[in-house]
Amino acid sequence: MKITSIRHASVPLASQIANAFISFETMTTNVVAVETDAVREGEPVIGYGFSSNGRYAQPGMIAERFAPRLRQAGPKSLLDETGENLDPLTVWRTVMSNEKPGGHGERSSAIGALDMAIWDIHAKIAGQPLWRILSQRYNGGAFDEKVLVYPGGGYYTPGKGPEKLQEEMRGYREQGYKICKMKVGAVPLAEDMARMEAAIEVLGAGENLAVDANGRFTLDEAIRFGKAIAPLGLAWYEEPGDPLDYHLNAELVQSYDGPIATGENLFSHQDMNNLLRFGGLRARTDWVQPDPALAYGLTEYLVILEEASKLGWPRRRFLPHGGHQLALNMAAGLQLGGSESYPGVFAPYGGFADDIPIADGYVTLPADQPGIGMELKPELMDEMRKQLELS
Amino acid sequence: MKITSIRHASVPLASQIANAFISFETMTTNVVAVETDAVREGEPVIGYGFSSNGRYAQPGMIAERFAPRLRQAGPKSLLDETGENLDPLTVWRTVMSNEKPGGHGERSSAIGALDMAIWDIHAKIAGQPLWRILSQRYNGGAFDEKVLVYPGGGYYTPGKGPEKLQEEMRGYREQGYKICKMKVGAVPLAEDMARMEAAIEVLGAGENLAVDANGRFTLDEAIRFGKAIAPLGLAWYEEPGDPLDYHLNAELVQSYDGPIATGENLFSHQDMNNLLRFGGLRARTDWVQPDPALAYGLTEYLVILEEASKLGWPRRRFLPHGGHQLALNMAAGLQLGGSESYPGVFAPYGGFADDIPIADGYVTLPADQPGIGMELKPELMDEMRKQLELS
Repeated sequence: MKITSIRHASVPLASQIANAFISFETMTTNVVAVETDAVREGEPVIGYGFSSNGRYAQPGMIAERFAPRLRQAGPKSLLDETGENLDPLTVWRTVMSNEKPGGHGERSSAIGALDMAIWDIHAKIAGQPLWRILSQRYNGGAFDEKVLVYPGGGYYTPGKGPEKLQEEMRGYREQGYKICKMKVGAVPLAEDMARMEAAIEVLGAGENLAVDANGRFTLDEAIRFGKAIAPLGLAWYEEPGDPLDYHLNAELVQSYDGPIATGENLFSHQDMNNLLRFGGLRARTDWVQPDPALAYGLTEYLVILEEASKLGWPRRRFLPHGGHQLALNMAAGLQLGGSESYPGVFAPYGGFADDIPIADGYVTLPADQPGIGMELKPELMDEMRKQLELS
Repeated sequence: MKITSIRHASVPLASQIANAFISFETMTTNVVAVETDAVREGEPVIGYGFSSNGRYAQPGMIAERFAPRLRQAGPKSLLDETGENLDPLTVWRTVMSNEKPGGHGERSSAIGALDMAIWDIHAKIAGQPLWRILSQRYNGGAFDEKVLVYPGGGYYTPGKGPEKLQEEMRGYREQGYKICKMKVGAVPLAEDMARMEAAIEVLGAGENLAVDANGRFTLDEAIRFGKAIAPLGLAWYEEPGDPLDYHLNAELVQSYDGPIATGENLFSHQDMNNLLRFGGLRARTDWVQPDPALAYGLTEYLVILEEASKLGWPRRRFLPHGGHQLALNMAAGLQLGGSESYPGVFAPYGGFADDIPIADGYVTLPADQPGIGMELKPELMDEMRKQLELS
């Protein structure tokens, strides 16, 4: 079998939302379809991928660097030992050839989208849902029947006061979520405190609320905020400072005992290693959140997990950012801690399959759809196929 | 005054050379020209910039993210206190608006090229060479009349044995260089040892030879190589391991006493802070080498220097990668340790003004050309203007 075409586009993820750092009005993402001449159920197998959310698309990078390397590679050189399927790890190495080390941003999300499409193909040709392949190949056959999910919501939008925030949180509860996340750090502390207290009123307890500062705080601000929220007993305190400020995290944990979460803006195993070595995080209580679709894909994530394990971090402490089906497959098949979710936000790219129920904060996986399962989200498929000019 | 147009192109830096990590056959760089309606000597002021070498161009990123932000900003909002010149720091903040923290790669070199053009404009409108502006504004008026430079050469090319390497090194000596650098790490240790010994024969002493592994080694390999070269007393041992593997550097200095250099593949002050905090480097003997044109420009470099100073690192320990005139201006005006140089390699983008003499390893600055001085390199100007379709 061989790849017959690589389509890609930069598409808008426009939204009126804002976090403490940026507005999402002009946000874009990479969308990719990789076509093959393998046939399943009478149709050529096509793999789909996209770059999650929060970082912009990389127009031209796939066209000028990554797709040409795949086209130039002999098709046989990309196959696994069966000779009838792509080997995602070999494809990844081919895509990354002639790339210098360091500088893990931008290209990591272009490759994240491409790698998602390759794994989608791989699982479709194997006739298995991706989570099952991951379970069998990398997890001794174990998997989770249900996965912890939480909505990454509570964004700042113009005119949204505590009442509207409560309304949003009530909506999540009605959908079946238990832990919900909200943004903090963009307004004065007293105002954020009122917002958090309002949210907790709806969610029943501080342990059902996570807060996300999106890297906004200086060390002093992070400590001050930590002291203010300590009595609330929150689920976690996310990205207090700059994602690369390991020193800040190491200092913050001296005065903040509750769980801390970070890592969504680290895009390689090298960066993750540094966080785990130097960031002072505690493998028993804290969470790390790299997003496979932004960080060179599932292929690199396997390296991230392996390296983290050597540093004493079990897979259960990983809670990937992004709210996409790739992360959900990985959480189930590799038994991660869970997965973020974006009901309604970033639609149709955010969110899981349409028929997956959420109950008491967990989702159950669809059992039989081969691949990542994007076909179970018809709105997403229609949008991607339209953007990629697939008839 | 205002910006009237922003032109940019991705241009080939094609070369037959290779280092221990990549081949440069398909290397590209960003080239930028920012036109203004300010007039000097009867001509509109145009600023030029490019992204050094070693990382690829970012087609589309300037077009879709950075140039639109500058176009949308009110022209007055970009001016300095004179009202007649651009404020490079404000321009930089405008370009970076709505960019998430973390992920410092790719965009950092697109912005590096843009920032170079803005500083070129700023100095041209001020009627001063850039190094003098830097000296006056950020260095209390002090500057260096001559700057240490060394050729970043000794690449692996097909069929190049120790004799050809010696020929190359002899050429550098004839041009006036004293310290010369060569690549290592792509061949077995014994072969590299023979290459280094051959180079030292020409250069007279180990202290005139620096070696660059381009991030190729594992920790064990880095230590083994360090032990092998220790008796040679080299000028420095550059980028032994992955640029983000701070732990590797911290371990290596336990067994390698000679100077170590690294940092060309770190592209932000956050990453540099981590290197200086966690990398075990010694501020008395080691060198750090971030490249302003790859790392968000001179504007970010000023932050890098300020943060490094807080961590006990004087400016003299900075030896920027890149071999371009921006780094040379910075080395003189901010009194850095020196600047890399690429005589012949990456031409016409590499190299300094045509009429600058090199003597005993130092270059003297041209005194009077306003701006960065690219006009003193006619071949470079012709190439950039052609690529940017400037008549």
